[in-house]
Amino acid sequence: MDRLLKNPANCAALSPVGFLQRAAAVYADRTSVIYGSTRFTWRKTYERCRCLASGLLSHLHVAKNDVVSVLAPNVPAMYELHFGVPMAGAVLNTINTRLDARNVATILRHSEAKILKQDGQDNPPHAPPMVVIIYDPGAHPSVTSHLLGVLEYEELIAGADPASSLPQLENEWDPIALNYTSGTTSAPKGVVYSHRGAYLSTLSLLLQWGVGTEPVYMWSLPMFHCNGWTFTWGVAARGGANVCIRTTSASVMYRAIADHGVTHMCCAPIVFNILIDGAQLAGIQRLASPIEVLTGGAPPPAALLEKVETLGFHITHAFGMTEATGPALGIYVLSLSDVDVKDVETMASVPRDGKAVGEIVLRGSSVMKGYYKDEKATAEAFRDGWFLTGDVGVVHPDGYVEVKDRSKDVIISGGENISSVEVETVLYRHPSVSEAAVVAMPHPRWGETPCAFLAMKVASKATEEEILSYCHHSMPRFMAPKKVVFMKDLPKTATGKIQKTKLREMARKFFIPDERLTSPSPAEVPKRLTKTSTTPMSGNRNLSSELVLVHSRL
Amino acid sequence: MDRLLKNPANCAALSPVGFLQRAAAVYADRTSVIYGSTRFTWRKTYERCRCLASGLLSHLHVAKNDVVSVLAPNVPAMYELHFGVPMAGAVLNTINTRLDARNVATILRHSEAKILKQDGQDNPPHAPPMVVIIYDPGAHPSVTSHLLGVLEYEELIAGADPASSLPQLENEWDPIALNYTSGTTSAPKGVVYSHRGAYLSTLSLLLQWGVGTEPVYMWSLPMFHCNGWTFTWGVAARGGANVCIRTTSASVMYRAIADHGVTHMCCAPIVFNILIDGAQLAGIQRLASPIEVLTGGAPPPAALLEKVETLGFHITHAFGMTEATGPALGIYVLSLSDVDVKDVETMASVPRDGKAVGEIVLRGSSVMKGYYKDEKATAEAFRDGWFLTGDVGVVHPDGYVEVKDRSKDVIISGGENISSVEVETVLYRHPSVSEAAVVAMPHPRWGETPCAFLAMKVASKATEEEILSYCHHSMPRFMAPKKVVFMKDLPKTATGKIQKTKLREMARKFFIPDERLTSPSPAEVPKRLTKTSTTPMSGNRNLSSELVLVHSRL
Repeated sequence: MDRLLKNPANCAALSPVGFLQRAAAVYADRTSVIYGSTRFTWRKTYERCRCLASGLLSHLHVAKNDVVSVLAPNVPAMYELHFGVPMAGAVLNTINTRLDARNVATILRHSEAKILKQDGQDNPPHAPPMVVIIYDPGAHPSVTSHLLGVLEYEELIAGADPASSLPQLENEWDPIALNYTSGTTSAPKGVVYSHRGAYLSTLSLLLQWGVGTEPVYMWSLPMFHCNGWTFTWGVAARGGANVCIRTTSASVMYRAIADHGVTHMCCAPIVFNILIDGAQLAGIQRLASPIEVLTGGAPPPAALLEKVETLGFHITHAFGMTEATGPALGIYVLSLSDVDVKDVETMASVPRDGKAVGEIVLRGSSVMKGYYKDEKATAEAFRDGWFLTGDVGVVHPDGYVEVKDRSKDVIISGGENISSVEVETVLYRHPSVSEAAVVAMPHPRWGETPCAFLAMKVASKATEEEILSYCHHSMPRFMAPKKVVFMKDLPKTATGKIQKTKLREMARKFFIPDERLTSPSPAEVPKRLTKTSTTPMSGNRNLSSELVLVHSRL
Repeated sequence: MDRLLKNPANCAALSPVGFLQRAAAVYADRTSVIYGSTRFTWRKTYERCRCLASGLLSHLHVAKNDVVSVLAPNVPAMYELHFGVPMAGAVLNTINTRLDARNVATILRHSEAKILKQDGQDNPPHAPPMVVIIYDPGAHPSVTSHLLGVLEYEELIAGADPASSLPQLENEWDPIALNYTSGTTSAPKGVVYSHRGAYLSTLSLLLQWGVGTEPVYMWSLPMFHCNGWTFTWGVAARGGANVCIRTTSASVMYRAIADHGVTHMCCAPIVFNILIDGAQLAGIQRLASPIEVLTGGAPPPAALLEKVETLGFHITHAFGMTEATGPALGIYVLSLSDVDVKDVETMASVPRDGKAVGEIVLRGSSVMKGYYKDEKATAEAFRDGWFLTGDVGVVHPDGYVEVKDRSKDVIISGGENISSVEVETVLYRHPSVSEAAVVAMPHPRWGETPCAFLAMKVASKATEEEILSYCHHSMPRFMAPKKVVFMKDLPKTATGKIQKTKLREMARKFFIPDERLTSPSPAEVPKRLTKTSTTPMSGNRNLSSELVLVHSRL
């Protein structure tokens, strides 16, 4: 039996790139990408991705395992990069456009880089072309001073031959994507996926969510979140149409739904508010056809769910994380081979009584390779053949795993994960702060928002406004605490550890009025933040850009 | 990037066994198997499969890569063997129950063996228990004389501990199943699947056919055909219910449909006739709920399709083969990475003009490891990184691959593949036959049936009846020619090769009346043939059995 050998005919390396190749054969003339007045077919998308890969290799000299970063909304180029970059043998790093300049710079330094960039406008037909910026990855930390060149994205595509040969994937364990888990003020954690993991995660999520052939998928979820929860690759696997949208404003989404017959979408629960308000404004009672919606994060309130379901959005709720390639539990995807709840000190499973809490642990093909350039964090994440999620749960007598609490250090605000440790790190840098603890407090619009508890140095005269303003200037807007509570001392255990449980109990009672009328809509947030973020890179080149792609020789 | 290593948490070996483990966790209390009055849950099925594996290991001393053969209808034990055997590290060999004793013996010799056996009756609640027969695989060729022991299947299960530890699959490329492609009078060809191939084939077929969660799957397709086209494993992956039936008689099928709310089934097109006739007899106009049906073989006539669709059976037609783990083209499964039509001499692709014929070639994860103990056939099946199907097709300008003809040597009769070469080999053994050529002729019930063209030795006085009778006694009934044509000489090319094309043209015009009223229904065929087939093995032990399971140390 064992004399029967693997050969190229019976043991192809698993890669999501294969989904595109197959789509180009099976769904050749069907629409692949819709964006404003732009339409591509799967044949054309495959051709453009081949050109992109070829251009990266021959023109930009991208080499095997180079990192190619991108900072972009859900435009067609962003979609193409999900195939073109791995087809060149490189690794795609999508950066959260909601991060500020400091965070983006940290990621660029950590992943070392050249740049590709697109001028952004909200009106797609008039959007200026994407621009590739190349800089010296070895240089520190200002990108501007080490700029090596600039190139238009379409120029790169046009200048390449789709027929030129591309490297063959030899090892399915090779990296395909690098995704940073949250803001990276303190310690960037770059989650690495393999081609194999991405392939298997995509298939199993399509199966578990029940995505049929040729879906019309609206990009209301940023592609920079776990590669769009694998649906960047998944829509190709099913020969569907990608409806690209730059923003999740109600008018943009309802127009796309009406124009293209959207069947599927993913989003953070915050988008439900936009859909409900928008329907009310536009007098929409019910969608012409129901839409399947996959969502994550904390379960939305029942009343909200009911409202959005009444409109015709059929909600599936999942629990996921970047390290497990997006949605995992809740729909318990096939690519996870096992889930348990353990006492991570002893690695013993907790009793199946629905009461004993422990840490949720996973294993399976959708679990990341590890953290990029971080052996310590990687070693800590895996124990005894399990991935430790950091999240807390119980097991019921029938084996059902219930998530009781996200990791205590994570606050989920408007679909974005915020590390409380990172916010605390910034607060500790303030000259008047003696002790800082950040916990989640409820928020009518964002679900949760950070609340800071501070003990100040004796001489301090700092006010809440001053601290709030300091935060707004020192971190991405979505990470900044919306409330500050001054205390003489923070509550501590006998061994001196801050008792966050007590602070959480307090914060749970705080009330923040809905800012809907006074604050920017979430749809505007990315644009504004991104403008800030690209400033240090565009600098004196005067590129008011939105999209940045970076790569580097490792 | 490459320093991030595989570990048990992020790189589980792919195996369909994982589907059962997951089903036991996610669908624990849902029904897994229905058979007469028998009901199992997924928790119970998992427990029984663990016992089976444990019993095979500890009691029968099955070792890694041993072959365990089974000759059985679609009973629960047959289903359990699909998990229990690989869980013991062994390889499952399901034998076509329609083969005769000679063919079964050939397979048993080729795969070398011990035996497990079940007495068979049509009334499930009263069916005597399955029996395990153990014999010395080294002995030749009569099994009876080397019988080592007999054991009841349920005794094996009951005597084992579900908690005892089982071997861990280390290498997903390890063999999981061995399927003989057709009757094996001449050269047995044992197709070997890997755990990885079986896993990927299952997932991609579930996706392509669009099988949602918790289907109710009726076993109208024998599990011995490519492991039930992977649905043995697939129903576990989706947490569905397996409705086991011994026969495909109309009454059995319609009762199962009514009692259990069947949603999915696979079958040969011949079963459509049974469904149509049965509906007429029972006065059924339309099913209460539609049923998805996957079928293979030659496309059924449009009129037949229309009739069966009107009843509420929604037909999907696929083109497949054992070597590609069942259905492949037609629905172009995701586990196939590429399909082409080539001139196999030059391995150049034929022009995409819908006219130029060539051989259909495949590559992908669902292509077999190779042929067991047959390096020559394995080497011939693979060329230049492709698997050669032996089937003929064209490529249309839009890239669509059209199957023009099955391999010239295969006749498909009532869903069973018949190798014309094998039938010819038997005919050549007849003392009066000088030349023999067997081709397909149309048949109103079986689709195709073999027709023999013979040139006889000068002194021969053999009649058609004599030859037909000889065939009936020398091969499985379904393989036996239904018509014999005597010729002075068979038509030949200039180089002396028999021109089968000319014979096919002749045979196409022959007419065979429908034997429906005089011949046994297909449902009865397996039982009768199996009884013949098991005679040499049961012999003086007086076991009138239907199900045989064999294993051997390789």
